[in-house]
Amino acid sequence: MYFASDNSGPVCPEILHALTRANHAFAPSYGADDITQQAQTRVREKFEAPDAAIYLVATGSAANVLALSALSEPWETIFCTADSHIHQDECNAIEFFGGNKLTLVQGDDKINPEALHEEILRQEQRGVHGPQRGPVSITQITEKGSLYSLDELHSLTHVAHEFNLPVHMDGARFANALVALGCSPADMTWKAGIDVVSFGGTKNGCLQLEAVIFFDPGKAREFELRRKRGAHLLSKHRFIAAQMVEYLREDLWLRCARNANARARQLAEGLQQANFTLLAMPRANMVFAKMSRATYQRLKEAGVTFYLWNSMEEGPAEETITARFVCDWFITPEQIDEFLQLI
Amino acid sequence: MYFASDNSGPVCPEILHALTRANHAFAPSYGADDITQQAQTRVREKFEAPDAAIYLVATGSAANVLALSALSEPWETIFCTADSHIHQDECNAIEFFGGNKLTLVQGDDKINPEALHEEILRQEQRGVHGPQRGPVSITQITEKGSLYSLDELHSLTHVAHEFNLPVHMDGARFANALVALGCSPADMTWKAGIDVVSFGGTKNGCLQLEAVIFFDPGKAREFELRRKRGAHLLSKHRFIAAQMVEYLREDLWLRCARNANARARQLAEGLQQANFTLLAMPRANMVFAKMSRATYQRLKEAGVTFYLWNSMEEGPAEETITARFVCDWFITPEQIDEFLQLI
Amino acid sequence: MYFASDNSGPVCPEILHALTRANHAFAPSYGADDITQQAQTRVREKFEAPDAAIYLVATGSAANVLALSALSEPWETIFCTADSHIHQDECNAIEFFGGNKLTLVQGDDKINPEALHEEILRQEQRGVHGPQRGPVSITQITEKGSLYSLDELHSLTHVAHEFNLPVHMDGARFANALVALGCSPADMTWKAGIDVVSFGGTKNGCLQLEAVIFFDPGKAREFELRRKRGAHLLSKHRFIAAQMVEYLREDLWLRCARNANARARQLAEGLQQANFTLLAMPRANMVFAKMSRATYQRLKEAGVTFYLWNSMEEGPAEETITARFVCDWFITPEQIDEFLQLI
Amino acid sequence: MYFASDNSGPVCPEILHALTRANHAFAPSYGADDITQQAQTRVREKFEAPDAAIYLVATGSAANVLALSALSEPWETIFCTADSHIHQDECNAIEFFGGNKLTLVQGDDKINPEALHEEILRQEQRGVHGPQRGPVSITQITEKGSLYSLDELHSLTHVAHEFNLPVHMDGARFANALVALGCSPADMTWKAGIDVVSFGGTKNGCLQLEAVIFFDPGKAREFELRRKRGAHLLSKHRFIAAQMVEYLREDLWLRCARNANARARQLAEGLQQANFTLLAMPRANMVFAKMSRATYQRLKEAGVTFYLWNSMEEGPAEETITARFVCDWFITPEQIDEFLQLI
Repeated sequence: MYFASDNSGPVCPEILHALTRANHAFAPSYGADDITQQAQTRVREKFEAPDAAIYLVATGSAANVLALSALSEPWETIFCTADSHIHQDECNAIEFFGGNKLTLVQGDDKINPEALHEEILRQEQRGVHGPQRGPVSITQITEKGSLYSLDELHSLTHVAHEFNLPVHMDGARFANALVALGCSPADMTWKAGIDVVSFGGTKNGCLQLEAVIFFDPGKAREFELRRKRGAHLLSKHRFIAAQMVEYLREDLWLRCARNANARARQLAEGLQQANFTLLAMPRANMVFAKMSRATYQRLKEAGVTFYLWNSMEEGPAEETITARFVCDWFITPEQIDEFLQLI
Repeated sequence: MYFASDNSGPVCPEILHALTRANHAFAPSYGADDITQQAQTRVREKFEAPDAAIYLVATGSAANVLALSALSEPWETIFCTADSHIHQDECNAIEFFGGNKLTLVQGDDKINPEALHEEILRQEQRGVHGPQRGPVSITQITEKGSLYSLDELHSLTHVAHEFNLPVHMDGARFANALVALGCSPADMTWKAGIDVVSFGGTKNGCLQLEAVIFFDPGKAREFELRRKRGAHLLSKHRFIAAQMVEYLREDLWLRCARNANARARQLAEGLQQANFTLLAMPRANMVFAKMSRATYQRLKEAGVTFYLWNSMEEGPAEETITARFVCDWFITPEQIDEFLQLI
Repeated sequence: MYFASDNSGPVCPEILHALTRANHAFAPSYGADDITQQAQTRVREKFEAPDAAIYLVATGSAANVLALSALSEPWETIFCTADSHIHQDECNAIEFFGGNKLTLVQGDDKINPEALHEEILRQEQRGVHGPQRGPVSITQITEKGSLYSLDELHSLTHVAHEFNLPVHMDGARFANALVALGCSPADMTWKAGIDVVSFGGTKNGCLQLEAVIFFDPGKAREFELRRKRGAHLLSKHRFIAAQMVEYLREDLWLRCARNANARARQLAEGLQQANFTLLAMPRANMVFAKMSRATYQRLKEAGVTFYLWNSMEEGPAEETITARFVCDWFITPEQIDEFLQLI
Repeated sequence: MYFASDNSGPVCPEILHALTRANHAFAPSYGADDITQQAQTRVREKFEAPDAAIYLVATGSAANVLALSALSEPWETIFCTADSHIHQDECNAIEFFGGNKLTLVQGDDKINPEALHEEILRQEQRGVHGPQRGPVSITQITEKGSLYSLDELHSLTHVAHEFNLPVHMDGARFANALVALGCSPADMTWKAGIDVVSFGGTKNGCLQLEAVIFFDPGKAREFELRRKRGAHLLSKHRFIAAQMVEYLREDLWLRCARNANARARQLAEGLQQANFTLLAMPRANMVFAKMSRATYQRLKEAGVTFYLWNSMEEGPAEETITARFVCDWFITPEQIDEFLQLI
């Protein structure tokens, strides 16, 4: 039973088959091949964005920091949450690639438009002395599994655009959010005012696939140079492109996400019936449940792999802590039941 | 009437005379001259630190970021307060020179040892994913004019050293703190566990003088290379050195600081008598007073130059805001009285 | 007929099968899985280096710049050739990751020990003013297809170590060099004084596989942090590790390299018989031949894909230019013959 | 007798008097004061550039690297000579501030337009793989004391502008070049196609004064942010501004430069009469003379302070080496005669 993360499961067989199909004859390297063109075309179609510039990289951190460094100047600050991946989990990659400071907008989990407005205002009282206002970065779904509604996205991008600040979406779990909202990729991005997306596939059944989508291609050339200078341009590019072609073909991406979300729901309901308190009923594929440290230890000893959330491993057995359960495309209803038996 | 900052007053005549005395014949450049040696010797004597490595630079930001980048690795985070100069007023210089993230320790103004301990603990739950623990940076006196007692400094450095983290002191107003505590430079620094100090002179009557003092000279060579690479090595070095020789001769530095602190006290008491609420009775040379926006406007129109603190210029006339008054070596009791007449 | 580069061919079927075998069940991410351990063990065995620290990344540029930035300080200069990949083909990645300057050692293609000695001496006449001496980076085989003998490697590393400078080997075509020398991996690396190797697999039949090998593991932790901060740590790490396990199993890597080298030899001999002048008889998998621009155009129109070397596409038809032909694991004797028919 | 450098002499008394005159009352800090405005106005007048943006910094390295980083992107290469200060004497400051590579245009000392054209062409054969073409940086007078004629400057800027590359002039010895050419500041800069100048005063009698002049103010705001982020914005700014006001008043700058150039001429003629071979008859304030190492040692023992140029201190006594003699505003005809007696 494995709920540690959605990057610990296997890859969808369809994705590996796509690699095999792509594996014949010679092809130009560094993205000049036909499959890369197909991948870009398919993304443009799915996002209804015929002019978008699309780039593929191997890690979500690379997608985030290359996108944000292209959107900002080194003397600017990026507005995000205290839980955001760019702040918590990238070992100062954004400070390295972009040179930026991160300004943590107050609030629990999702960014609140009023808090954002206030924080942006605060960042303009010191002329050249303080960091200048920069991009806003939103994670959909958030690191705590929450889902921004389309209205919430509209309100946030409206605040940012009032100050002419671009908005980046960290979409490491883009598909999970999309099926939860039941809207179109365009609805959740450019139609909602998002300027650039990190569109993730790795956490949803791909081998290694992250795309950066610029709806305004004005930064395209700069991004290509930043990607190369960051040593993130893959030489045998057809093999990352083949993943995208397959990922978006016949809705593989949506099927994977739907299963992950459904399993999280099944898990959450089971936990509630077992009288666990949830931080929230999951909209996507992550469940956060409170439990005593004793229960946490017992489950681990029973062979369940999962992480705590902002809590210490060590401490009093009776203390209540929060555990994170992540479901991916691969997990089955039976496995969830098996786990629920256990508790 | 000028209370905007202690970098807007003139330079002590003694300092300019020292430049004139230094201005004869040829001398080796880049710090190989005799006056630079005298300056270093004098700092070592005053700080009772015979092995200390001492470097002179032209700005306080340079002193801070060069010192901190030498104390840290780019993947580390620096612990400081939300008000600290390195966070608020250096336009991402530390993110540039050091590549670091800044972790803002919760609390109002001064760092609290418990909050520091908790924040350091929090920064170690994600292996290589999160920023690593780095130096602690303390401002003495703080940007809000508060003074750390020797006991408070001991407690903070004790927490940092428990985790083998070095401690930097931003001493832009070092002398003002020193005369307020009435202790020795050694007491307030290495004897209290401080590893490196930015020892400022510019805000206390010098033309342009900031020293970085490493009590452990192990980083000396690295610092010299960082200073040069940062384009902060002055060629006609004898002239910045001459300021330090004079600054520390016959306690010029203490006399200047004592006047500034006394004037702030005089100002604070006058404001209280006039029924202004102070954030605190000043220990050093800065006074923070609450007033209505109307009063603020009236004083400005009457020709008083001073800044607001974390407050907006625009807003309702009756709203209470906080104003900052800074006194320097140059301001006289008569000027304070004149201002107090005004209110 | 495709001689553009050894990153344009397909992937060895064995490598893709290895991915499929690795694709079952859950596994820890970020390199904590069993396959990663197997990969590291296999590299240590093949290199007779039980203490070596081994890291896997997706691009050769990442391997080079992460390795060199860990070996150097930002104020140091790296000694390499004017043709080296880190200078010519990484879009200032080393200036970005390491902050270093590159000092181009004079000479044609391979570094000459005397020239290296002279250049190192020259970099030490200006105290802190000039860049400081840093690592030496050697490419084996070179970008011009040349092979360093073991004696040549010994002489170069001897010069570097006299000055306590570490030596890095860019081994993008490591296996091609190895089979050409007919020595062991240990002979060509640590036994010859190499401190760190970028051990490439991508250009020799892998999907995407580059390893950085530190024979002295002292920099291991720093490298892990640099890799993460550079956004180069792969989440589904088992799939890059599986490539290494397979690559080194039953000498797949040597078989691929032997074919590539043999094809280059076959091609070179055919070109000579057709009265083309070669820059040199190839020792590994790259052939450089002089031809008129007219011939170059004719071959391109006949469907041969290959690049010029330091020559312009445009120019007089009769001018003699140099063409580069690269052979990879996939090319067959028949394809070479077919090409030779053409000329 | 001191010929080590033009940064080892004293400061012109007029400059120190200007500091004293500026030293009264309070004044806004960070360049918002009246004297800073006067300084900018005076520079605009002298350069006949009413729209120019002018910034003052404390070191020549800061002027160069801040100017060039504002003119370039991190993935670009800067064209300069192997002797240029930005390459030889700034400890990788440009790699730090700009992230750039430096491309060394072949040739001895001055850049030759044909060589520049060829080198620029060479930097465009690898798409995103190689560094992109960036600014051209010219030193007037060069580090070897040579003077570009106005025609030579026109030819060089013409080549750069053909490729839309901006041109920077490192004018650490601007005034020495100006009086040698006998032209106007405008003639030697924007009228000759120079886009940005590092206009130095420190080497010509100032305490510490370097200006960056953008003839096109489009980069003004970016430069201000880069200067602050580089920790190069001086707080008591009136005192650096006062130097510029005085430096350009009543041609102090030209008088200082004329003396330095005349002394170099006197020195050169004396050396020739004493049968020393000069690299060239000096046009400005630096003389390069060949001599045996024995003579060099004898002169040093006789108390003459001067440096070798690209030559080693140690070596055979009879070997011919090159010595550099720099004259500044302060050196007298009598001192030159005294030295000439010695040889």
